[in-house]
Amino acid sequence: MIRERRSLEERLERLEAIEDIRNLMALYCRSVDMRDQEAFLSIWQEDAVYEVPHGVADGKARISEMFHTIINNRQKLHHHTTNAAIEVEEEQATAVSDVFYYRLDMQGKSELMSGTYRDEFSKSTGQWLFKRRSFASHVTVSPIFATNNEGKRGE
Amino acid sequence: MIRERRSLEERLERLEAIEDIRNLMALYCRSVDMRDQEAFLSIWQEDAVYEVPHGVADGKARISEMFHTIINNRQKLHHHTTNAAIEVEEEQATAVSDVFYYRLDMQGKSELMSGTYRDEFSKSTGQWLFKRRSFASHVTVSPIFATNNEGKRGE
Amino acid sequence: MIRERRSLEERLERLEAIEDIRNLMALYCRSVDMRDQEAFLSIWQEDAVYEVPHGVADGKARISEMFHTIINNRQKLHHHTTNAAIEVEEEQATAVSDVFYYRLDMQGKSELMSGTYRDEFSKSTGQWLFKRRSFASHVTVSPIFATNNEGKRGE
Repeated sequence: MIRERRSLEERLERLEAIEDIRNLMALYCRSVDMRDQEAFLSIWQEDAVYEVPHGVADGKARISEMFHTIINNRQKLHHHTTNAAIEVEEEQATAVSDVFYYRLDMQGKSELMSGTYRDEFSKSTGQWLFKRRSFASHVTVSPIFATNNEGKRGE
Repeated sequence: MIRERRSLEERLERLEAIEDIRNLMALYCRSVDMRDQEAFLSIWQEDAVYEVPHGVADGKARISEMFHTIINNRQKLHHHTTNAAIEVEEEQATAVSDVFYYRLDMQGKSELMSGTYRDEFSKSTGQWLFKRRSFASHVTVSPIFATNNEGKRGE
Repeated sequence: MIRERRSLEERLERLEAIEDIRNLMALYCRSVDMRDQEAFLSIWQEDAVYEVPHGVADGKARISEMFHTIINNRQKLHHHTTNAAIEVEEEQATAVSDVFYYRLDMQGKSELMSGTYRDEFSKSTGQWLFKRRSFASHVTVSPIFATNNEGKRGE
């Protein structure tokens, strides 16, 4: 409705913002899974906030520490973002998306988990970056694969 | 090909329609998983048809009943839409997408399932809404997690 | 930045290319899972290269053979593409995406796997097609579901 009154230029910018934000979401997953610190740090604003079950990291220095806490506690991770709904309002944006992920912990236990990300993005630096990402776990009783129990039975 | 002859305005409208439809698909998942009846009902046309293995719901009143049947038979659900291919033809659209979902039934059994949605959308009310959604299960022998068997062995 | 200097027409073409490429990624999954050879072959350039753990298929004739090798070795497959990051440069494009997939082998073993696709696309024929798709497995120790072990115990 309101959208119809915008110029073609403004409407294009909104669609381009959505693509840029989808790329940030993809790069978040890829950089954690590939343990690529440089790529991971490139997606955040200096004063960004990152909330995960491990705690709240405020600012890029603490976000970097959190990244290491996460990857150092898992042998392997593979994140898959789905259901992204992105709302753009000029230089600000919000999004809700779901994530489904595989993790292999340090004891060799494989788990399949899922949750929801609530995000804020800003283009105040000239490019879209994460301003805030908050994760809430949805499937709290994590499914445990048969291989784990094989291990427990000592086979 | 045909697309090239369209005006910039028409081409933008098509891309905006695709985004609106992606949002409907995301909201479908989110509203079922969060058991949010109001959000779930907001995505359908009055005369929409919703086909699932439980049966066919014709019109919003029956779709509302189906929503309750689904959520009342599961302790927990988490849907993830993937592979959306959306075709827009002016005020009508069709789509095919895949879904991968986790469900926890009333007896505590965790399952991972997957299937395909075939959808029709319409903008006849001024905003894009579901006109029809049909679900077909793809992985019929649902993978059963180890935890279920733990339960069965009474541990 | 560079993007800002492009015409509205060029910017629209880029967004349309991204949608076309997303559709190719979706059709790849759907055609393998549905064992639809015609749809599968429609997404490749004549001289495309397809790299999977089974080997490298060079050109459409060998890609067709690879398709049959893949589907003939699995009772069932369901692929879900996620995290697509697509870069378009005029008539060429590259992409990285993740995939999460279910497979049921000929012995009745269910597995959940995941990996990453690195792709090249070209519009040299007038429509976007795969020029190269390379798959790398990410989760190499595939999670094995409880049902497999049930089978092994001969129940």
